[in-house]
Amino acid sequence: MGSVPAVDLDRLVADAREGVPRAVGRLISLVEDGSPRLRELAAALAPHTGRARVVGLTGSPGVGKSTTTSALVTALRADGRRVGVLAVDPSSPFSGGALLGDRVRMGEHATDPGVFIRSMATRGHLGGLAAATPQALRVLDAAGCDVVLVETVGVGQSEVEVVALADTTVVLLAPGMGDGVQAAKAGILEVADVFAVNKADRDGADATVRELQHMMSLNRREVGGPSWRPPVVRTVASAGTGIDDLVTALDDHRAWMADHDRLGEGPRRRARAEIEAIALADLRARIRELSGRLGSGSALGELAGRVVAGELDPYAAADEVVSSVRG
Amino acid sequence: MGSVPAVDLDRLVADAREGVPRAVGRLISLVEDGSPRLRELAAALAPHTGRARVVGLTGSPGVGKSTTTSALVTALRADGRRVGVLAVDPSSPFSGGALLGDRVRMGEHATDPGVFIRSMATRGHLGGLAAATPQALRVLDAAGCDVVLVETVGVGQSEVEVVALADTTVVLLAPGMGDGVQAAKAGILEVADVFAVNKADRDGADATVRELQHMMSLNRREVGGPSWRPPVVRTVASAGTGIDDLVTALDDHRAWMADHDRLGEGPRRRARAEIEAIALADLRARIRELSGRLGSGSALGELAGRVVAGELDPYAAADEVVSSVRG
Repeated sequence: MGSVPAVDLDRLVADAREGVPRAVGRLISLVEDGSPRLRELAAALAPHTGRARVVGLTGSPGVGKSTTTSALVTALRADGRRVGVLAVDPSSPFSGGALLGDRVRMGEHATDPGVFIRSMATRGHLGGLAAATPQALRVLDAAGCDVVLVETVGVGQSEVEVVALADTTVVLLAPGMGDGVQAAKAGILEVADVFAVNKADRDGADATVRELQHMMSLNRREVGGPSWRPPVVRTVASAGTGIDDLVTALDDHRAWMADHDRLGEGPRRRARAEIEAIALADLRARIRELSGRLGSGSALGELAGRVVAGELDPYAAADEVVSSVRG
Repeated sequence: MGSVPAVDLDRLVADAREGVPRAVGRLISLVEDGSPRLRELAAALAPHTGRARVVGLTGSPGVGKSTTTSALVTALRADGRRVGVLAVDPSSPFSGGALLGDRVRMGEHATDPGVFIRSMATRGHLGGLAAATPQALRVLDAAGCDVVLVETVGVGQSEVEVVALADTTVVLLAPGMGDGVQAAKAGILEVADVFAVNKADRDGADATVRELQHMMSLNRREVGGPSWRPPVVRTVASAGTGIDDLVTALDDHRAWMADHDRLGEGPRRRARAEIEAIALADLRARIRELSGRLGSGSALGELAGRVVAGELDPYAAADEVVSSVRG
């Protein structure tokens, strides 16, 4: 393939700041691929970030996350705001079909220069998503997005990570998945800043709303100062119904955080999650290096062999790995 | 709640070896909860393990993983084999509903003393699944399971982990998700030891089989010795059709691995994945300790504040974390 020309990062960052979609896309690709130049990129972006609000959307498959995200984009654009969308896909070689379908629904925004849409996959790097998503957020921030919507696809640890990244987290529910509300119990109360009961034209919407409100009444905690009470908004995202209410709820949450001098929490949480993810990726790479050393009779391979032979338990083996990594 | 009586691990292990379901369940709960006594448990189980074959089942949502797993249990039981099932659920507060539905389908095996069925969740511990699943496998192995089926629920990094744990990996597909086959491209070829095209009575089954075979013909690699060619089995799991063929394919793969002196690969891969997961969990805990130190002005919190203020880039902050962890 010959030699690959060096990427001109400064040029890309300058173009991204002008809102050139291709530059934004290339920068996010660098992030996703774990480019060795990410340090440089972080430094180049830093002066141009700190403005975008991050809104996370999460919920079970089938509640309508993509449709709601798309409807939110429409509403925010009508309001003149520049919008980024990061659809966070857990890494999987098997997820292609469904995800492509989801992305197609975003098609209406594909030609709007005020919208950047990007699916993020970890491409098999464990922990990669946690490190890559904050960096992709910085790219969109530098590109002038007022709001970045981070949508999780599917269920999994990615939700937890997305919550750590968002200034405001929307938990989506749908009627008829009411068992889920019960099963999820306290979990969703803790992460939600706003609830959206989507498909609210279906039977059972009232029951879902009531159930949520009941759960919240049981879980009120006023310890440590006043707390935000998550509003419950009814939406029919496919028809655009209730989306303005959802935008209002998002803005209300932001205003409340500002009034309580808590706007800094989201950025600090993001920075913390990112530092931790980068540090862990570094430590993981050091562990992997152990397996590379000495060829096939590598340190990690040898330890595994001793565990299989019953000479060593996996905890003792892990202790040796940690000692090696700690130098 | 008063003091919790100490668990008698030796007694539990002895009972589990007798096949007492409650003992098996309690041991797996200890594993899942990250009990501080896992080291002890690993040592107590070690002499009684090394016999079970691990079969991983993976594929997109909707292809019929639970139904196929259940049908496989029936077939293996008819064959007189003791069977364990671990349904690996990515941790999520939102996944309750669908998962409960899946588990209900396993109900027919609930009263069979030769079957142990367990859902595994990470309960929010990142990396927890990777560490906990091998340990749960050891419990089922010690409990006398001849075969343990590890089924992933949903998509995500869990697939990658399951592949690392299995002796034989079954990738399930279904007709009409053919776009998925294209999208997934090489990914599924690399992880599959056996393909099952489920719902094979539906339109498009032939096309899916052909597409798979075509992809395999393009991807044949004979580098480094002969390679196993994954068979493609047609099943209608809900009717039990083709399940005997699937069992035969699993046994063929095992026989081929034995003939090529490669039976040790699965156990070594499992041990390696487990050692790495435990080591990473240890290192992660050390990072978290940094955030606990010095109260709210903690080391990690302070670094995050400096990143937000633009005084430090996240990579430099992570370097400081890694240095601290490495002591």
